[in-house]
Amino acid sequence: MTTANGERRRGRRPGGTDTRTALLTAAREVFTEQGYDGATVRAIARKAGVDAAMVNHWFGGKEALFAEAVLQLPFNPRERIAEVLGGGDPATLGERIVRTFLTIWDAHGGGVFAALIRSVAAHEQVANALRQFFHDNVFSQFAGVAEDHGELRANLVASQMIGLGVVRYVARFDPITTSDAEAVVKAVGPTLQRYLTGPLD
Amino acid sequence: MTTANGERRRGRRPGGTDTRTALLTAAREVFTEQGYDGATVRAIARKAGVDAAMVNHWFGGKEALFAEAVLQLPFNPRERIAEVLGGGDPATLGERIVRTFLTIWDAHGGGVFAALIRSVAAHEQVANALRQFFHDNVFSQFAGVAEDHGELRANLVASQMIGLGVVRYVARFDPITTSDAEAVVKAVGPTLQRYLTGPLD
Repeated sequence: MTTANGERRRGRRPGGTDTRTALLTAAREVFTEQGYDGATVRAIARKAGVDAAMVNHWFGGKEALFAEAVLQLPFNPRERIAEVLGGGDPATLGERIVRTFLTIWDAHGGGVFAALIRSVAAHEQVANALRQFFHDNVFSQFAGVAEDHGELRANLVASQMIGLGVVRYVARFDPITTSDAEAVVKAVGPTLQRYLTGPLD
Repeated sequence: MTTANGERRRGRRPGGTDTRTALLTAAREVFTEQGYDGATVRAIARKAGVDAAMVNHWFGGKEALFAEAVLQLPFNPRERIAEVLGGGDPATLGERIVRTFLTIWDAHGGGVFAALIRSVAAHEQVANALRQFFHDNVFSQFAGVAEDHGELRANLVASQMIGLGVVRYVARFDPITTSDAEAVVKAVGPTLQRYLTGPLD
């Protein structure tokens, strides 16, 4: 539908890059207004002026759209976590989580991580949306590998990895910032291993 | 010295609350412009229009002035760390660090912690100043209790404690945010104990 002054706001757009961009813009607005759980694919698509099927077509689903639009992550956390949890020796799970985290964020120079922390610290709605997203897509996976206290264990993993990211990419403390990734893997891996599978008291 | 239009900018102020406030304002400017190492007590006092001795009188020294002016911490981190490191069984050091951290920040509702993280993430100069401050006043103390790799061990402690603060006070993940402090002490204490005194590889 084209308005009298030539704008095309509520009509369906043809599939293409502008659909993708329109969905990202609409998603940022709807997620921050409604939170992760409250935002529906239908509402986002309506605001973008496209068919709801375009969300699956361009992003594969609501959580991937959230990750790209709001968290602006350069990867799909749900998929990467599933890969790490799914393959390899359970006894090296902690090390593999740290290695994957550093491989991803080192490759992006840490600027994206800093932007994420800034956004969470500055906007209550982003913190709310992040919390819901982690609950639904991240913690549930970690909790699945723990025998007890799954949510607490997942929170503890998050606390160490977020702190490692802040120190390595945002505050840039030495020597963590300049350390070889494998040295950090050896130092921090056992912490995550205990958080996921060891005694907590 | 009073200027022609009655302003008292460069003259020495009498000791009092306005001296303290003037020093805080001047310190914020000088620290963010010059960094922690580059800022001198003399330069801050000059900008505030007071005698340099007023810094010691009102704050006890440069690091305490920095903590209050830039980090806006509701306590003196150097003194609190010295207390924790100085007293008690070395085998419970990790737990005591977590307990002290949670006691302080729980009492302040976490808003101050969120403001600190926001400031560090948003301003490169604050991150620089924080890094220098931690190096001079925090890491050196932790490094003093470690037999080897003192700076790395201190960085690892910082990574876990900063991440715990982000999860409990900023992102507010459940159940870490609602957990009793002692449950968190039991879960995280052994991590710090290993970072300070255990094997790192």
